Amino acid sequence: MNYSIPADVPKEMHDVFVKNMDRMTCGSGKLFLFAGDQKVEHLNNDFVGPDVSTDDADPEHLFRIASQSNIGVFAAQLGLIARYAPTYPNVPYLIKLNAKSDLIKTDQKDPYSATWTRVEDVVQFKDQSGLQVVGVGYTIFPGSEFESQMYAEAAEHIFDAHQHGLVSVIWAYPRGKAVTNERDPHLIAGVAGIAASMGADFVKVNPPQRDGKISADLLKETVAAAGNTKVICAGGASTNVKQFLQTLYDQIHIAGCAGNATGRNIHQKSLSDAVNFCNAIYALTVEGKTVDEAMNIYTDQRHDN
Amino acid sequence: MNYSIPADVPKEMHDVFVKNMDRMTCGSGKLFLFAGDQKVEHLNNDFVGPDVSTDDADPEHLFRIASQSNIGVFAAQLGLIARYAPTYPNVPYLIKLNAKSDLIKTDQKDPYSATWTRVEDVVQFKDQSGLQVVGVGYTIFPGSEFESQMYAEAAEHIFDAHQHGLVSVIWAYPRGKAVTNERDPHLIAGVAGIAASMGADFVKVNPPQRDGKISADLLKETVAAAGNTKVICAGGASTNVKQFLQTLYDQIHIAGCAGNATGRNIHQKSLSDAVNFCNAIYALTVEGKTVDEAMNIYTDQRHDN
Amino acid sequence: MNYSIPADVPKEMHDVFVKNMDRMTCGSGKLFLFAGDQKVEHLNNDFVGPDVSTDDADPEHLFRIASQSNIGVFAAQLGLIARYAPTYPNVPYLIKLNAKSDLIKTDQKDPYSATWTRVEDVVQFKDQSGLQVVGVGYTIFPGSEFESQMYAEAAEHIFDAHQHGLVSVIWAYPRGKAVTNERDPHLIAGVAGIAASMGADFVKVNPPQRDGKISADLLKETVAAAGNTKVICAGGASTNVKQFLQTLYDQIHIAGCAGNATGRNIHQKSLSDAVNFCNAIYALTVEGKTVDEAMNIYTDQRHDN
Amino acid sequence: MNYSIPADVPKEMHDVFVKNMDRMTCGSGKLFLFAGDQKVEHLNNDFVGPDVSTDDADPEHLFRIASQSNIGVFAAQLGLIARYAPTYPNVPYLIKLNAKSDLIKTDQKDPYSATWTRVEDVVQFKDQSGLQVVGVGYTIFPGSEFESQMYAEAAEHIFDAHQHGLVSVIWAYPRGKAVTNERDPHLIAGVAGIAASMGADFVKVNPPQRDGKISADLLKETVAAAGNTKVICAGGASTNVKQFLQTLYDQIHIAGCAGNATGRNIHQKSLSDAVNFCNAIYALTVEGKTVDEAMNIYTDQRHDN
Amino acid sequence: MNYSIPADVPKEMHDVFVKNMDRMTCGSGKLFLFAGDQKVEHLNNDFVGPDVSTDDADPEHLFRIASQSNIGVFAAQLGLIARYAPTYPNVPYLIKLNAKSDLIKTDQKDPYSATWTRVEDVVQFKDQSGLQVVGVGYTIFPGSEFESQMYAEAAEHIFDAHQHGLVSVIWAYPRGKAVTNERDPHLIAGVAGIAASMGADFVKVNPPQRDGKISADLLKETVAAAGNTKVICAGGASTNVKQFLQTLYDQIHIAGCAGNATGRNIHQKSLSDAVNFCNAIYALTVEGKTVDEAMNIYTDQRHDN
Repeated sequence: MNYSIPADVPKEMHDVFVKNMDRMTCGSGKLFLFAGDQKVEHLNNDFVGPDVSTDDADPEHLFRIASQSNIGVFAAQLGLIARYAPTYPNVPYLIKLNAKSDLIKTDQKDPYSATWTRVEDVVQFKDQSGLQVVGVGYTIFPGSEFESQMYAEAAEHIFDAHQHGLVSVIWAYPRGKAVTNERDPHLIAGVAGIAASMGADFVKVNPPQRDGKISADLLKETVAAAGNTKVICAGGASTNVKQFLQTLYDQIHIAGCAGNATGRNIHQKSLSDAVNFCNAIYALTVEGKTVDEAMNIYTDQRHDN
Repeated sequence: MNYSIPADVPKEMHDVFVKNMDRMTCGSGKLFLFAGDQKVEHLNNDFVGPDVSTDDADPEHLFRIASQSNIGVFAAQLGLIARYAPTYPNVPYLIKLNAKSDLIKTDQKDPYSATWTRVEDVVQFKDQSGLQVVGVGYTIFPGSEFESQMYAEAAEHIFDAHQHGLVSVIWAYPRGKAVTNERDPHLIAGVAGIAASMGADFVKVNPPQRDGKISADLLKETVAAAGNTKVICAGGASTNVKQFLQTLYDQIHIAGCAGNATGRNIHQKSLSDAVNFCNAIYALTVEGKTVDEAMNIYTDQRHDN
Repeated sequence: MNYSIPADVPKEMHDVFVKNMDRMTCGSGKLFLFAGDQKVEHLNNDFVGPDVSTDDADPEHLFRIASQSNIGVFAAQLGLIARYAPTYPNVPYLIKLNAKSDLIKTDQKDPYSATWTRVEDVVQFKDQSGLQVVGVGYTIFPGSEFESQMYAEAAEHIFDAHQHGLVSVIWAYPRGKAVTNERDPHLIAGVAGIAASMGADFVKVNPPQRDGKISADLLKETVAAAGNTKVICAGGASTNVKQFLQTLYDQIHIAGCAGNATGRNIHQKSLSDAVNFCNAIYALTVEGKTVDEAMNIYTDQRHDN
Repeated sequence: MNYSIPADVPKEMHDVFVKNMDRMTCGSGKLFLFAGDQKVEHLNNDFVGPDVSTDDADPEHLFRIASQSNIGVFAAQLGLIARYAPTYPNVPYLIKLNAKSDLIKTDQKDPYSATWTRVEDVVQFKDQSGLQVVGVGYTIFPGSEFESQMYAEAAEHIFDAHQHGLVSVIWAYPRGKAVTNERDPHLIAGVAGIAASMGADFVKVNPPQRDGKISADLLKETVAAAGNTKVICAGGASTNVKQFLQTLYDQIHIAGCAGNATGRNIHQKSLSDAVNFCNAIYALTVEGKTVDEAMNIYTDQRHDN
Repeated sequence: MNYSIPADVPKEMHDVFVKNMDRMTCGSGKLFLFAGDQKVEHLNNDFVGPDVSTDDADPEHLFRIASQSNIGVFAAQLGLIARYAPTYPNVPYLIKLNAKSDLIKTDQKDPYSATWTRVEDVVQFKDQSGLQVVGVGYTIFPGSEFESQMYAEAAEHIFDAHQHGLVSVIWAYPRGKAVTNERDPHLIAGVAGIAASMGADFVKVNPPQRDGKISADLLKETVAAAGNTKVICAGGASTNVKQFLQTLYDQIHIAGCAGNATGRNIHQKSLSDAVNFCNAIYALTVEGKTVDEAMNIYTDQRHDN
């Protein structure tokens, strides 16, 4: 596929960038990002519980899913990837460069998530290991009293990533005492614009809400504001598979999103269900399948197991 | 044109500096800077709304205007420029080195806008891409509790820019709990003097006010205080085209300004109106046309479309 | 033994890493870490007192124990090791990279423990001295307002350690105004997951409690959450030797821990008792002995002395 | 003249250091420093007003004075010097390395003035431009909550300056919530001692006061405490020329000062008056003239004009 | 003398380290450190006053004493040493790497003393000047909210010093809002242990007190806790020479201290008294003389003058 290659990717890295973008989007330009960075962000809250498969207690579960199913890219911290990737070398990886826990709430202190890993180290890691490291990610919290520091780090990382032909994804979540509604559609459009101004290839936002409800229409302003930075978001809190897939479908076909980023809704399932679910999301996102077709993939494979 | 070349531009870079200054001012010494950095500074507030053209929802609108009209230079963050410049290589670009959102108000925390991009990376970007990168910009907030950090960054960037023959522009806005009147003429003269002490080639100030009203006379102290650092400012909040042009004209011909920096008043218009408006501003600023002549350019071209 | 070698250990360092892991775990994969970093963490509180052997007043006591008994590795700050290691070159050393005192309580300021020694200096120290420096350690305080800075330092150190084939151990203690129960089993599982996400080879946690009581069962969530990052913890506050050994045994055989880290319970004993105690812990941890067998080692050797 | 050359000036730089000291003190060992850094420190307050010559509105006024009169050295920020020095290459320049505005008062936040320019860049600037850059200056605010950071920067700059044979001047002003009397003679002696401990060649202090009145006697403790670091100070708030000259004379001949640093009292005058005033100060400071002789120089030249 | 050489002194620097240790302790292993860093720490308070010799007003007094008397080493900031050492090249110097004034009290802000001079610059200074620079010193304030930063700097400096064969001395003063009794013997033992953990060769502590009184017995815990890091302390506030010498004697012969660090008690005397007093302290500390013998040295030499 023809991608618009940003001007901070040097000419001799164009092929690498296109190859990485092709690998992440499977040649479709649409991204299904499987997010596996929650062990820091949410500690163990996402991995145990009454509605969570016991498979999910073990971090290797994430890698088993990523390896056995169709996904665009699996995102996690370099350290976690380093521990499992030798066993799962077929997975395309995206290194999440910063992380923080959710132990400190905003009313105590506004969020700051510092850089764990510099792009230079990602490149060294990629070259040494021969792993398929195709991109990097970084979370910004616009509205935090520390936003300026995070913007500076993010912009530098994106430039450095592009210098090496790596794809960049910004997680953009408005948060802090100054933010009264994190899901406000206009505000989410604004933070997508910040990511675009940083030169991000993709921006991951939370689905905007009006009166507590999400809707693909609410994403249109965001997709417009992001310009040629592609917007991805998750399916929201719903755990009903069909409704989840419908939401993703609408995000792509109504709002113009370029895919999605999903974590908990995948890995809280048993391995087989998670694999089927990934395959369904992949079919819908990357292969252009309908909700019913994707649902059938999820259901049929379940019966096959 | 003969420019006074600052002594921190090395001799072997004099030609580059003059060429960049010529490109920015079209050989006139007068600068029309089209500002496109608001997607961070104001999030999406400037780009949608009842009085805003729907063209403006897409960031590419900025580049279309910059490419199709007469301007001195288009200013934005490196990341945004990197994403669109390959399609619009004819535009002269100025890299805005720092940025922050307006989510945090001064009564919560005084403003600090950190460096996103170092001059060294700008130079690498310029050399790799072959784009017309002619200068860099940085915003200082005198009166902020963090002013000292921003002054230090700005002074370093200007020195580094001059080392590479790049032109430097300082956005100087008094802001913070210690500042009771951001538009005070004497205070604005003071911050222009700070920019001069940093060695800036241009300083962008907000039009000073007395009793809530702007006037070119109020700028005279600023123009004097800036010395051979050239002063540019915007036309204020007015959206009446003729009044806007008259204000710019007076700033040049009464106050001695060396041009202007305009953003919202341009890009909130439809593409054709924005192009015409740019051409009018350019004629007035760079070509020395009268307000009526400039107004005709705006009106005639509208009719032609 | 076959270890899973993290992907950030370069291929040419695989042998070094395996050798270091073998040395630390004596080929068993199980670690008995003798912690000697309390002179900073607790000042002199652990080293004098009615129930503390007078042997413990002298820091050399730590090295005498480490040298004369069976241990996996002795952990302390580089400076202390540098002062005694020339006399005790047979000890395998782990450099603790950060440290702080306990003088500032959490209600005054959340904890931050800065890096004293970079991995680069550890490697230089190892190469110059010829000492058996096999790994590095770093303490994080999840829930501190400064957690982000410590995470960033820890992740960087682990990457750098792996680059040189050194083994990494994270001390992970939830602490700060946001933490209401530092011994909560679910929270401790969470911080073990953070260490795993950093790529740590071992994570040292405090034994979780329910209703003020520890139990090996409470560690199971932690061991699962840590994945292939091995969990070690101490035997708690008990000073009854048999009960202490039983706790360690249960941590290994019920919870799946990969060993333990013990400090005060060792060095507060006289030299001969401490040596015997180490030998007992070693037998239980590394050699797979039962509690009774280990207890006999402790008792018999006491009688021999 | 024979100067005591500090030991951190390398032997191969002795000649450069002596030459710079000779240039600054015109071979006399006495320094008349013309201070031109107020455009940042006081914004435009010093440059316009009922008692200020209109000449002073333009920053070039400073350079005209410096070029046309007898002075030891002209001190300002690198950026300002860079903009005018090509026109005034005959002036000996001292680069002020840090600067801050006076917008933030001490009751809001204690002062911190960050480094704008590193000595390394000063040296590069000097070598590239061929200008007479003879020294560097830095302001410390002892008593500020941020004093430690400024001390560290100052000490490093002085060492670096001496490494390159540059002369160093410390502006030392006690300031901050902890300082109840900025003009206390004993406190001023103390801060002169700090500058000496940093290795400064000159320390600029404000004239100490007792009961609101200055007196040369009050400076004696300061001159003693500074040792072979030479003390310079201004003539105080007086604008009566003769009284001003008498004060400077007493500072040299009673207190043992090695000259003075004057800014506003010079540049607020018209160009011709300012030039005459400089010549008078120079005669008194460098040439050892009496107050009456210096006064005649000021008066005669006025009549000549 | 045979010293235990820390393992972070590279083998090729063993001779340099031994030579420096020999120079500092005059081959005795006992250190008499003459402290001359108070011009920053206490401003001019120690140098003028009713009980202070007028000789002390001039900083050169410190160097005259150091040059004319028997001492182990003279400690001050690099800058001050640089200004006088060319005249006093026979003095062995120790560079104090950090410093702060006492203007900010603990109830306003906890103490932080930043690094003025890096070891790398000390080494360059030593090599360029040919001066006898034998060691470095750094002050830590355990219990300060900023302790972590100071620990990190101190540990790095000691490592760097040892890399170049320089001897390291830590000034360790518990201080901050968390510290209720800075002279508590157990706490002072604790901070000595911190210095040992950093690898310091010497730790300077204030003499511990119980019920407001010092006693050599109270130092025993400290000397034990410091291990092979040698403890030095001052003679306390007493200005009675004989009592002062008795205190030092007891610190060595009862508590096991390895010498002392004295400042004010020396330099507040006239030059001849100060020289005699140094000779007395030296005889007692380094030559193993009794209090009476040392007292005679002080008294006889006085009569000789």
